[in-house]
Amino acid sequence: MAEENTVFVGNKPPMNYVIAVITEFEQGTKEVVLKARGRAISRAVDAAEISRNRFMKDIEISDIKIGTEEVESEDGNKRNVSFMEIKLTKSS
Amino acid sequence: MAEENTVFVGNKPPMNYVIAVITEFEQGTKEVVLKARGRAISRAVDAAEISRNRFMKDIEISDIKIGTEEVESEDGNKRNVSFMEIKLTKSS
Repeated sequence: MAEENTVFVGNKPPMNYVIAVITEFEQGTKEVVLKARGRAISRAVDAAEISRNRFMKDIEISDIKIGTEEVESEDGNKRNVSFMEIKLTKSS
Repeated sequence: MAEENTVFVGNKPPMNYVIAVITEFEQGTKEVVLKARGRAISRAVDAAEISRNRFMKDIEISDIKIGTEEVESEDGNKRNVSFMEIKLTKSS
C-alpha cells in the first residue's frame, strides 16, 4: 500500500484521524489507508466507521489487512506487535 | 457468521482467546470467528495473530469484517460502538 495516502493512527482522539481521512479525499485521492499498531487498532476501526457513516457516505472499505511487525523498544529489545490496515475507497 | 464457532473477545489476556480458538479447531471445526467490540478489537487481532503464527500454522485469515453496532449502556442511553470479526479457516 502506498505510503502517500496513509493516515497513521496513534493516541489522539478518533476525530483527528477522521479529519485527516476527509482531508485526503478532498484533495482528490480515491484511496486512503488507515494504519495502526497495538492498542491504536480499535481507534483505526472507529475512525473508519465514523468517516463512512457520518461524513462521507460515498466511501467504502475495500480491504482490511492484519499482521505482525517487529518493533524495537527504547531498551533495545525487540517485540512483536499486531498491526491493521484499513483501505478506504471513494466510489464516486 | 454462525454463532456456534464464535469466540467473543473481552478484557481477558489474549492467550485466553488463543486457547479458545485452538480448542474449537481441535474439536474438528474448520472455521472460527473472533468477535470483539470497542477496545477489545486490538486484542482480537492479537489473538488471531498469536494463534496462526505461534500455534497453528495451518490456519489462515479468510475474512475480516468491521462495522458499527448500537449498544444500550446501563443508564439506558444508546451509543454506537465499532466491532470487528476475524474469520479463521483451517486449510488442512
